[in-house]
Amino acid sequence: MTRTIVESKTKTAIIGFDQPFCVIGERINPTGRKKLAAELELDDFSTVERDALEQVACGATMLDINSGAVFTNKMASDPRYADNNFVEPLLMPELIRRVQALVDVPLCIDSSVPGALEAGLEACEGRPLLNSVTGEEERLELVLPLVKKYNVPVVAISNDDTGISEDPDVRFAVAKKIVERAADFGIPAHDIVVDPLVMPIGAMATAGLQVFSLVRRLRDELGVNTTCGASNVSFGLPNRHGLGAAFLPMAIASGMTSAIMNPVRPQEMEAIRAANFLMNNDPNGAEWIRANKPKLAEGEVEAGARGRRTGGRRRRPA
Amino acid sequence: MTRTIVESKTKTAIIGFDQPFCVIGERINPTGRKKLAAELELDDFSTVERDALEQVACGATMLDINSGAVFTNKMASDPRYADNNFVEPLLMPELIRRVQALVDVPLCIDSSVPGALEAGLEACEGRPLLNSVTGEEERLELVLPLVKKYNVPVVAISNDDTGISEDPDVRFAVAKKIVERAADFGIPAHDIVVDPLVMPIGAMATAGLQVFSLVRRLRDELGVNTTCGASNVSFGLPNRHGLGAAFLPMAIASGMTSAIMNPVRPQEMEAIRAANFLMNNDPNGAEWIRANKPKLAEGEVEAGARGRRTGGRRRRPA
Repeated sequence: MTRTIVESKTKTAIIGFDQPFCVIGERINPTGRKKLAAELELDDFSTVERDALEQVACGATMLDINSGAVFTNKMASDPRYADNNFVEPLLMPELIRRVQALVDVPLCIDSSVPGALEAGLEACEGRPLLNSVTGEEERLELVLPLVKKYNVPVVAISNDDTGISEDPDVRFAVAKKIVERAADFGIPAHDIVVDPLVMPIGAMATAGLQVFSLVRRLRDELGVNTTCGASNVSFGLPNRHGLGAAFLPMAIASGMTSAIMNPVRPQEMEAIRAANFLMNNDPNGAEWIRANKPKLAEGEVEAGARGRRTGGRRRRPA
Repeated sequence: MTRTIVESKTKTAIIGFDQPFCVIGERINPTGRKKLAAELELDDFSTVERDALEQVACGATMLDINSGAVFTNKMASDPRYADNNFVEPLLMPELIRRVQALVDVPLCIDSSVPGALEAGLEACEGRPLLNSVTGEEERLELVLPLVKKYNVPVVAISNDDTGISEDPDVRFAVAKKIVERAADFGIPAHDIVVDPLVMPIGAMATAGLQVFSLVRRLRDELGVNTTCGASNVSFGLPNRHGLGAAFLPMAIASGMTSAIMNPVRPQEMEAIRAANFLMNNDPNGAEWIRANKPKLAEGEVEAGARGRRTGGRRRRPA
């Protein structure tokens, strides 16, 4: 059975077909969050720390740490700050240190800059997930040696030097190539987590079907775990959470074992808890029952608490 | 491509892998609804009529008409009313006439009494779905001739003379036997809609997984459409609608094409609309977008309406 093991200093999480779905919290990511990027430039990590705590409180299994920022104010005096290749290797270890001082879940080191990946691997305790390698020749040659050297699992995104194919067979072939190339480096398939790339169904009507069948093939033919950027599927459409809350269980039923997503959204998280139970990955439904305890109406007190408060009257007759 | 065609007098619905999921409204069923049974005994069809209209308004593709009642007051003076075999053949055609006078969706004639099935087939316009035959020898010999005579599709429940097996391989074998026996009668596989039987996950931890894999096998190996009593899966558990809203998309991703369910529940219906879109069975997402138009805040007026009300001021300058 395929098991991808990730660890923080104190905690182990397993990604696998017989495990609860692995929710990788996506919030710590300055790409497209200008306000967050501006804060980081000022050494202000308050949003990062709040996002770390909130995502873990909402049930994230792991946290993705993306360092995708340039520093727009500093670049005026020092043009190097306009370059991700300069900023990210400095920023990534700082982000990791802040987050792992605060929460104990395993981390996912997310950057397109190889120097940031290596700086993150140096700073990170335990066994993080590296995010990511692609099928591009240059990336394979840069990232796989890091994966081997640090003995960590890696996200493999199924695009290559020709770009992202709309043909799912090509995307499968790219994933297969990465798994084979990794094997040449001595990296086992269970340390590759394939992202088959989720397109928006608003732009490509077959995008959902493609993912479900790709995930099944990746599981059956390559025996690998899978992940995706789950919110992509609903891009540009109304009620995105409603779509996400159906997409995730469908992907899980097809064999998807993790997703990079926002764990703060209750609708998607409920869908995942239900899917875990339905896949027999929530023993005795303990997690489902805990999360769905009857809510108390306002002013109501739990039976035990009321018993204590009015203990004299509730005592049994002697 | 497997297509099961059902018809009312004026409307056709197709059950199939490339069709929107077929929602068979379950509400018209006096079994376990004592108040409804008592009303029917008094020739009061108001609840039936209300349930018919409400289920269609909520998006039911078809309505199940179950006649499972005995008449407890009449049985004092006439003991025949204590017998389903007497009551149901009288009640079924009356239920069907009332419902088809009011709504135009195809019907599903649901009884364990062969006489009620035949009386229903006589009364029903169009091409109803017959519910059901099992793998029990006596049922096969009684029901399949009706299916052939009236040229209708039939729900095949995968239990036999040995009962309901907990082994999914046995349930698959029973389904296969029914399909083969139907073929002996000249009934094609596309007119068999198999119910693989959904157990409660609270009682059997593998129940969800069993359904997903059975549905896939029934589709791939027998090429048949499938249905189920969807609410069974969550029996005895908290937040049943949350479980149903994940179960249905997972079953749909596995190949399930219809369910007998309560269409009045918005959470499950939203999940089905999302699944239709994700399976590429909602062209251009038209149904999803229609159902998820931005809600207007209280007091707000649609742009068009406001335009008319304040037409003078909004008119373009000449």
